[in-house]
Formats: sequence, structure tokens, C-alpha cells
Amino acid sequence: MSPRRPASPAGRGILVVGSVALDTVSTPAGESRDALGGSATYFALAARAFAPISLVGVVGEDFPRAHRELLARRGVDCSGLETAKGSTFRWSGRYGQDADAAETLETRLNVFARFRPRLEEAHRRASVVFLANIDPDLQAGVLDQMAAPALTACDTMNFWIDSKPEAIKRLLARVDVFFCNEAEAEALAERPNPLQAAERIAQWGPSVVVVKKGEHGAFMRVGGRVYAFPAYPHPRITDPTGAGDSFAGGFLGSLAESGAFGELGPLKRAMAYGTALASFNVEDFSTKSIEDLDRRRIDERFRDLVERMSVPAAVPAAA
Amino acid sequence: MSPRRPASPAGRGILVVGSVALDTVSTPAGESRDALGGSATYFALAARAFAPISLVGVVGEDFPRAHRELLARRGVDCSGLETAKGSTFRWSGRYGQDADAAETLETRLNVFARFRPRLEEAHRRASVVFLANIDPDLQAGVLDQMAAPALTACDTMNFWIDSKPEAIKRLLARVDVFFCNEAEAEALAERPNPLQAAERIAQWGPSVVVVKKGEHGAFMRVGGRVYAFPAYPHPRITDPTGAGDSFAGGFLGSLAESGAFGELGPLKRAMAYGTALASFNVEDFSTKSIEDLDRRRIDERFRDLVERMSVPAAVPAAA
Repeated sequence: MSPRRPASPAGRGILVVGSVALDTVSTPAGESRDALGGSATYFALAARAFAPISLVGVVGEDFPRAHRELLARRGVDCSGLETAKGSTFRWSGRYGQDADAAETLETRLNVFARFRPRLEEAHRRASVVFLANIDPDLQAGVLDQMAAPALTACDTMNFWIDSKPEAIKRLLARVDVFFCNEAEAEALAERPNPLQAAERIAQWGPSVVVVKKGEHGAFMRVGGRVYAFPAYPHPRITDPTGAGDSFAGGFLGSLAESGAFGELGPLKRAMAYGTALASFNVEDFSTKSIEDLDRRRIDERFRDLVERMSVPAAVPAAA
Repeated sequence: MSPRRPASPAGRGILVVGSVALDTVSTPAGESRDALGGSATYFALAARAFAPISLVGVVGEDFPRAHRELLARRGVDCSGLETAKGSTFRWSGRYGQDADAAETLETRLNVFARFRPRLEEAHRRASVVFLANIDPDLQAGVLDQMAAPALTACDTMNFWIDSKPEAIKRLLARVDVFFCNEAEAEALAERPNPLQAAERIAQWGPSVVVVKKGEHGAFMRVGGRVYAFPAYPHPRITDPTGAGDSFAGGFLGSLAESGAFGELGPLKRAMAYGTALASFNVEDFSTKSIEDLDRRRIDERFRDLVERMSVPAAVPAAA
């Protein structure tokens, strides 16, 4: 990832391609039924505070108009959110005391099973593209359609790591930033810990590997070095669904805004913004706690996180 | 913990009371037999770079003279290390790929079973005292003997949490800093996660609660706020034995040196020094990787850790 800069202000835009879903989730804090979800949704709502954001995805005829309006009112360009015949993708899951482990109760792909992203001209010219978790061959197909993105990033999940590992590796050779969680990193790289896994994944192409560890924070491997960031210390979490995509939204949003894609400082800031967005995400069910976030509150939490980690340089003299 | 300062330079000294042992350890990286170990040993070797350190403990007649000489040559005052009739405390354990979980194969307390710490006058006047993991009633007995310590700290383990939880709570009302790991915190506080556990433990007395999380770093709860620090990113660990006590040694050593016991800055520095010492500790078996550490290398790693976590304040303008 060389320090490339977008050619025009329009080029500051971010494109996300991924799922828009209706989620039913239960956690120790309560329950939420048929609520707005999906990786592209969380990502877009998290990134919109930083840069123009366009969403490409598909929903069914049952997708509530209110959800589409919510996204539009928050400034998310939904011109690429197709409505297809059939039902919207539905996911249902349960979390126990361990917020890092979701138990999937049901997945109905519905219209999402036939999703073949085709980009409008305006979307092809986006500066930053995030390929949320879909079939890695479809993710590659999106890259094929992009004009000249300054920064490309992707996520994946265990289902694809198990079924299409070679397709993921081919994709990794073409992206700048790879997001995954600990278990995914270890499974994909066939290594016993996330640091060794990130080491191996970096050899396959991405100049930045971000490994998310839930309550334990996240680390980024870049330039052969590892930068770990603790999570925001929430003693009580309401719903962790979408936290990883909100992390990616804050991370790539802040990078898109900075326009500096190969420099360590902005990458560290991106880690802190990702941590901040994920920390808001878990405070309520569905997208509730990120829907109405403004930049002032995001920056407040960013500064809070940075302040907690900052260590004063000088040793105070003993009296 | 009010900002108290020691009255005299002699008062900068640290006293550690705890075990000195011979350990047999196997890890995926290899094996080590009857090697120098024990919580007081690790703590003392980690703290000695910062302040004068005295060790109070007991060994048997079989304790190798070379080990005592090693400690003495490193500046550890061993005048309180008694030699009793019988054999030295021996511990034998095994680690799998998860360095955070030791399987105890054998524990022979030997002379340590009859350990009743009695402090010499000089040791009673130490400014900082660390009560390493022993019977909480014995830990309290050490506090009873102290003249006027500026800072008191203790550790414990699951065995005492299960068998003497009330004695631990009584002790916690008398110490400034409590060190434990995640599982211990959750068990002692009967809470489902370490943040909630630290919240409850803080109510019992200690103004600083430090929860160690192995590869995920550690956090400190002080003044109602949580400060989390990632671990040094070692992709390969040789032997984690003693890392927690080395952490405490770096933490309390740096605090003793600063002489500032109630200020946030020095406490954050203590977290980073604790992290640094623990990171050296795991690089070799027994005490090998901390025996010969000098301050220059410790400070180098401290700066490395602080640099990795530092986030630049300014947003670079987009081109």
C-alpha cells in the first residue's frame, strides 16, 4: 500500500458491498426481533460520519420502507440497494455471557442467495471500497468492476474460510486491508495464535491485517510490526451484533477522510476510530446506538480512548 | 491511596514476601527441570532495576547455592531468605498452545508449608511491600509487622479464593494495589466478566485493581476508570511461568522509583513497565530472560510499547 491519494474530492467516497438483513437477536440484556442488520448496514452507518458512503446490496419486497428511509436520512446513498422479488436475508442468533461467541439459530439467505453485485458508474469510481463478508469470488467480481480505488479492503467469515480458502487467498493478493477475527485468522492461516496467523496472512498480500478480538480489542499488523489497541471498557454489553462491521466503518471512514493511506499515524487513528465505533455499536440492539451518532460524540470517545492509553514520557522525580 | 511519599531514601526500598521454588516446566518450546522459580524470585528480579529490593522467604537445604548467589549478585537482599530443614518448594507444570493456561502436574510445598514470615527491623521499614501469593492470613500477618509502608500490594490465587475468600476480602481492605488474573477476579467477585469483577473488588478496598489477561494484556482500574494495555506482541512464547510476578515487579518497581503513589501518570507508566517485564519473562525458561536485564533494555522495550500505542492527535489534511 503506497501512499496514494485520491485524484478528486468526489474520490473521497466509500463504497460498501455486502448484506442488508433483518436480524432476530437475544442476549442476556434482552431481545430484538426482525430489526435492521447486515454487515453493509452497520459499516455504512459507522462510516457516514467521516466521508460520503454508498451501499450496494439487495433486499426483498418485505424490507420495511422505514429502514431504507433511515439509511437515506443518515446520508447513506442507497441507489445501489436493489429490491428483488422475495424476502430479505434473515439471521437469528443468541449470545450468552460471552459476547464474543454468537450461536446462530437460523440463517435464511432469501434474495441474498442470488446477489450478484453490478456497480453503477458512480460507484465504480469510489476511492475506498469495503467488500463486506460475501462469497470471495463475488468480492473479487466487485474489484474487477472498480475503476481505480485508492484503498481496497475486505472481511470474510468461517463459512468461506472452510469452503473457499483458495478464493480468499486470491482475493487477499488484491486488497490493501484485511479484517477478520481471531478464530478466522487462525483457521485461514492454519496457525495456533492470531499473531502468527497475521504474519502468514500478510505474506499473501494485504499490507494491513486487522485482527479483531472482541472484548480484548484489536491489533493491526503493518510494515512487519503489530499495533494492539484495547477495547473500550464496557462492563455491560447489550448486543455485540455488527461490532466488527462498525469497527471497519470507523477504521476505513477515518482513513478515507484523512486521504493518507500508507502512513502509520492515520492507520493508528483508524484503529482508535474503529474501536470507538465498535464501542458505541454494542450499547444497544440492532443499529440503534449508531443511527444517531454525530461526529462530536465519536470524537469525544476517540479522545477518551487515546487519553486512557497515553503514557506520560517524563519520570516525575521522587520527593 | 493518597499521594504519599516515602520519608527517606532508604524508604524507597521494596520488600517482597513469597515463594522461592524449584520448577519443572514443559511447554511447546521445550522443557526445564528443577530451575529457579517462585513468585518472590520473579518479582525481585523484575523489580531490582528500579529500586532496592529485599526478599523474605524460605528454602530447603537442597536449594542450590548458585541460585542464592545469582539473586545476591543481582542486588537482591536475601538476608530474609531463610534456609529450613527439609526440601525446597517444588512445582511442576505443563503448558499447551494456550500460554495462558498452566496444567499443574505436581505441587510439593515442603518447607514452604511451614512458612511463617517474621520480618527483621530493616524489612519492616520498607516503603513498598508486595505480598506475593501465599495464605491471605499470612499476608495480613506481614502487614501487621510493617512500620509505615507508603504502598502495599498483594496477589493471590484460585486455591485461596476457593478456600479463604473472607480472609482475602479482609486483606483487600488493607492494601492499595491488588493484582490478579481474569479468572481469579471473576471467581473472587462472583461476576461474569473481569470489568464487573474489578468494579466489585475495588469496593472492598484497593484503590488500584490490576487484572492480568496474558496474551491480551492487562487493565488497571483506578479512580472509577479502566486503563487497558495490550501485551507486547510475541508471536512465540517460550515459557509463561512467572510472567504475572514479573509484571508486578516492573509495576511496583517503577512506582517505587517514581515515589508518586497516587498519581495517574506514574500508574500508567507502571502498567507499561509491568508489561515490559512480563514480555521479557516469557522469552526463555525459568528466570533466564530477566536475570541479566539492564535498565537500558527495559527502557527500550518500555518506549517501544508506548510508541506502538501512541496515536497522533492531528488529522493530516487530505491532498
